[in-house]
This record gives sequence, C-alpha cells and structure tokens, in this order.
Amino acid sequence: MTQPNDLLPEGLEDRLPLEAARITAAMRACLDVLHAHGYDRVRPPLLEFEASLAGRMAGAVAGEARAMFRFVDPASLRTLALRSDITPQIGRIASTSLKDAPRPLRLAYCGDTVVIKASQLDPARERLQLGAELIGADSVAAASEAVMLAVEALGAAGLTGISVDFTLPDLVDTLAAKALPLAPEQIAAVRRELDTKDAGGLKAAGGAAYLPLLYATGPFASALAALREVDAGGALASRLDGLEAIAASVGAMSDGAARITLDPTERHGFEYQSWFGFTLYADGLRRAAGRGGTYRIAGSDEPATGFTLYLDRLADAAPQPEPARLVFLPLGHDHAAAATLRALGWRTRAQLAEGEDPRTLGCTHILKAGGPAELEPRQ
Amino acid sequence: MTQPNDLLPEGLEDRLPLEAARITAAMRACLDVLHAHGYDRVRPPLLEFEASLAGRMAGAVAGEARAMFRFVDPASLRTLALRSDITPQIGRIASTSLKDAPRPLRLAYCGDTVVIKASQLDPARERLQLGAELIGADSVAAASEAVMLAVEALGAAGLTGISVDFTLPDLVDTLAAKALPLAPEQIAAVRRELDTKDAGGLKAAGGAAYLPLLYATGPFASALAALREVDAGGALASRLDGLEAIAASVGAMSDGAARITLDPTERHGFEYQSWFGFTLYADGLRRAAGRGGTYRIAGSDEPATGFTLYLDRLADAAPQPEPARLVFLPLGHDHAAAATLRALGWRTRAQLAEGEDPRTLGCTHILKAGGPAELEPRQ
Repeated sequence: MTQPNDLLPEGLEDRLPLEAARITAAMRACLDVLHAHGYDRVRPPLLEFEASLAGRMAGAVAGEARAMFRFVDPASLRTLALRSDITPQIGRIASTSLKDAPRPLRLAYCGDTVVIKASQLDPARERLQLGAELIGADSVAAASEAVMLAVEALGAAGLTGISVDFTLPDLVDTLAAKALPLAPEQIAAVRRELDTKDAGGLKAAGGAAYLPLLYATGPFASALAALREVDAGGALASRLDGLEAIAASVGAMSDGAARITLDPTERHGFEYQSWFGFTLYADGLRRAAGRGGTYRIAGSDEPATGFTLYLDRLADAAPQPEPARLVFLPLGHDHAAAATLRALGWRTRAQLAEGEDPRTLGCTHILKAGGPAELEPRQ
Repeated sequence: MTQPNDLLPEGLEDRLPLEAARITAAMRACLDVLHAHGYDRVRPPLLEFEASLAGRMAGAVAGEARAMFRFVDPASLRTLALRSDITPQIGRIASTSLKDAPRPLRLAYCGDTVVIKASQLDPARERLQLGAELIGADSVAAASEAVMLAVEALGAAGLTGISVDFTLPDLVDTLAAKALPLAPEQIAAVRRELDTKDAGGLKAAGGAAYLPLLYATGPFASALAALREVDAGGALASRLDGLEAIAASVGAMSDGAARITLDPTERHGFEYQSWFGFTLYADGLRRAAGRGGTYRIAGSDEPATGFTLYLDRLADAAPQPEPARLVFLPLGHDHAAAATLRALGWRTRAQLAEGEDPRTLGCTHILKAGGPAELEPRQ
C-alpha cells in the first residue's frame, strides 16, 4: 500500500480540514489586526528574476538566496527563483512602484514561500509567511509599533503565553568600535564564541572583556541592568534607552501579558537587522512564532522596521475554531429557509441522493418544516 | 530610469493596495459562500513530484502538465513541479488521506498557481485559483449544486451580469456512438470543425449530419429545443433532461439573475470533463471568471463535480471595497480609545514622529480628547 505521505516530497504537506481551518482563522485574525492598524496589503508574485530577488536580500543573507529553487524562464531565458522570503519583495515595491508614496508607509503581506532545503530545526520547506513592514522609519517608535502589532496579532490568533525576546544585532560591532576595542580580525571570532555562548572560547579569542555579555540575558529588567554595567563608556546608551522604551510600550499595551526577555548577543536569523531585533514565542510552540526588527532596505538603503509570522507553524498552537452548526438539507427542502440559516452563520450540506445519512456527513441538525432540528448524536 | 515593470518577469505582477484589497475582499466573500454550503477547505502544497501531479491530470490535459515549471529536488533527486492547477491535488487528497471520508465529500481550496507559458488570450502566468469539488457524485443534483454555488460566489464577490454557458463535453462521442454514426477516424476531424464552427469544413470532414449542432447555441431554451430536434434517436435525452433540470435549479435559485446559455460543442478548457461543463462570465470581464463541470478523478476514477474561479482575474470587475474611516493617532494619544475605535471597525495610523501630516498619510480623521474629528479634505 502506498502511504499518503509517500506522495509528497520531503518537507511539503497537505493541510487537511481541521488544520486548514486553524490556519485560515489565524491568518484572518492576524491580517485583520494589521489592516486595523493602517497597514495596506500588497501581493507580490511567487516568482521573480533570481538576480532581482537575491539582490534585494542584503549581503549577509546570501545563504537565504542560495536557499531558493531556481529555473530558467523560457519566456526571458533568464533565471527565475521561487521566493523564500516575502520581505525583500516588499522592499522592492517600496523602492519602485511605491517610491513616491508618503512615508511612513505601512504595508502588509501574506503568502507562500519555499526553501530548497529544510533546516535541522524545522523540516518544513513551505511556509505561509505573514508580515508587516513600516517603511521609512527605524526609530524606537517604529520598533515599538512593530513589537506591539506582532504581539496583538498573535493574541488575536488565539495564542497564549506570548513572550518577546529582544536582541541587539549590531552589539559587537558597536562595542568593538568604541567601548571594548577589538582588532578587525578578532570581531568574527568574538561573535562566533558569543553565538555559541562559550566562555572559554571567548577568552581564547581575545574577547575576555565581552564575558559579561554572556550573563546579560534573561528577564528584561535584570538583563538590561547587567548590560548597562557592561556599557562603561556609554557606547550603548541610546540603544539601551531604546530597548527600555520599547519594553515599556509593550508592557503598557499588553498589561504585562507579553513577557519580555533580552538576549543581546543573539544573531541567528537577524543577519539583516540593524540595531534592534526581536523573536516571538508562545505556549505550545517548539519553535519561534516569528521575528522582526529594524533594517535598511537593500538597494535604496531606506530605514524600515517590520516582522514576519509563520502562520502554518503558529497555527499548530492556535485554538481549533468552534465548529459551526451544520444543517442537513433534505431533498426538496425550502431554499429560502436554508439561505436564511446561512445568513445567520449556520453551515448547510444539501442532500444529493436518496440514502444519505446526515450524521455520517457530519451534520448536527436537519432542516424540517419548522426549522432546524438537532440530530441525536449517534450511540 | 528602470521602470518598475522591468523588474518582474513577463506575466507576473505585483498587486498594489487597491487591487490587493479587491482580491482579498472577493476571496473572502467566495470562501465564505463555500464554507456556508458545507465545503471544508484543504491546503495542498505549492510543489509536488512532477510525476504525481502530471499523473493526476487526465490524459487529455497533458498540455497542462507540460505547462508546469519543473526542477530537480536536491532532497529526493526527483523532478518537482510548481502546480498549474489545484484540482488534481484535491483529487489526490480525496483518493489518499481522505479516501475513507464519507461521500459526498465537499472540499474547497484557494491558492496560487503558475503556468510556464501564458496563453494568447491571457498574458498572466500566475493565477489565484479558488474552487470547490464535490467528490463522489457527478449527477444532475451535483452539477446543479456546483453551478448554483459558483453563481452565488460570484454574486457575493460583487460581480453583476453573471451568465453561465453550459456545454456537453462528450457530445460528439455520444452522438457518434449512437444517433449519428461516424467512423472512428472521422471523430477527431468532426470535433475540430465543430470547435472552429466551420460549416464547410464540417461537411468536408463527413460530418454533414452534425451541421445543426452549429445552430443549437445561444439562449438556453431555444438552443436546447434545437438540440432536441437534432437528437432524433434520443441518444442525448438523459443529458438534455439533465441540462434542463440544472437550468431550472439555477433559475429558481437566482430568480433569473444569472443568464443561461448553451454552446453544446464548446470543448476548450473542458478536456477532462465528462458529460457536463459550464463557463462563468460577468459584466466587465473580457475573459471567463471560471469554469467547472463533472469529471472522473484520475487514478481512482471516482465521479466528481466542481468548479474553479480565477480570483485575480474576476477581482478586476469586483467593486472596490468601501474604504474604512482612517484615524490619525497623534503622539501621546489615548491607547484605549484607539483600541475601541478599531474594535468598531475604524482603521488607525499612529504618529511616529513630529511633523507627520495626517492627510498626506491618507487619514480621514484625527483622534482628539473627545473622540475622532473629521479632517477637512485638502483644498
């Protein structure tokens, strides 16, 4: 016997009705939040010229560009790529068709993306990516809006136990240039040891002065205090004040519902962020629900702030939408009565042939002359 | 200067906010209709093994299979294809994961599809396909439900002047086998001349007896009467009775709002349909809004009925959604008041920095202490 999964390539799967209903409900809830906050949706295409897509991914994301499926377009004889990330497409739209639109420009998107190779942490190669980009600003106010919006979207999707982990993607560069000098050839090694949180390696790499950074992590208030102590020369002061303001905004907005943590040296997934990055978590998810931060649009160098949510991933932890009452419409039923029920939010399934059993078809009710009658659950 | 369109391959385009809003509104309206009628959404992946996708496209749709972008999957070393049609994927799901689900099984879908080569009639290579499939039935009742559902979906999307053109995809085969015999080698030629509606060619091809079919087209009642006259031996009687019953159902449902026509020899786009096919049109659309019909699922040979709508295409003729009132939230605004407005259906845009002009940002109102105040339109 062929098993259903044998029919699909690794990392690609069908979403059957229950799972698809969770994804659709989470998607609509998140998109409605973005729409309500003034973000206008745009729809870029699935495919672009590879050179254009890769060129819009900042240098540090070259790995991402290599992750795209590519093929020759018989129409242009040029190489096309299937997008692995929608963010660069939004940057392109902001820099071309919407370059004269007033700033700050708020854009939202939602669509499928595909990577050629799954990561060890996440076997999925297709992802339903949803996000918001605030073009023209990378200030504390912009970052606060992005974090608040992401938290509100996750809450609207029904997630609980939301937490936000802040990071400072350019921390080592900033410290190395001012407070804790490093030779240019030491910077990469120090970053690498901080990434792996290896105290011995950090010392060996000449980064002993960076050791306290390993301990400036955890709940926001205490981690920030630890980071302020590291920052003897005040090189980080404006960044740390910014983090504090963002945390205060989020705290005020969410009444403390979203827990905030700080991991200032976390760089994974923030290769193209500038001074601020954040990762979103929620109860029931083994992996991040999304991430975001401030950045510069590749090509135009315009400042921007945004975030991405992985809808199919977060839908795993979203509540199953309440099933609607489902009414069986017998042959010869009253069409107007059925239409009225649908207008009131009921679902209907019409009988097509003799011998159909309403309960087998998942119906909870049957339409009778006097209206819908509840079906006895089967014994 | 690079023009924005130079950045995208032929037949692929960005949908900017106004157009994207029309597509989103039409999509939700159509999906809500399918959901209300008991169709459960599923989400198959963008990519599959080419052999699996092509094998699910019935023989006659080999052209469609050739229309897919293909590339080698480094994970499996097998050829993958980017789907050009979601219908075969629904057939696969119905025959595998949902093979034991009770019939009739009602499934809905909506997603992006891509063809490698545009047609002369439609330069788009990416299409947003939405549809419904009724698995396990290809009866008159099933066909009536599919047509009614499609018409209701188009109406919900705001289209007007909806018309449905019925066809009988296996008409020539049926007549050739019984009432108007043709030698096997004549059938293809007669079909071809009927396709081009060439009376002279039809006679030359030995299909003189088929000439009246060229005139059995147009408004449903008169075309059906003409077709009944052709059907001297009654070979088509059950099909014609079926068409009449479907037309009566649609007429009753739509109060005659949907015009019905008949073009019994139309085969283009119906290569995999069995006895019944239909094409949907609406005011303001140069091309069809969608099509559907009865068919057998390739592989399992299970009977099914369904239809497809091309959302991006039909959104061209859908009304622009009423813009929501858009409130500018000045620095230091009352967050609770803003949240209340959003809950009431207003959209908000928050000020990020000094010097922003609410009207430049598209706002119609500004939040003041007493609530939202309308902004004077700029002179």
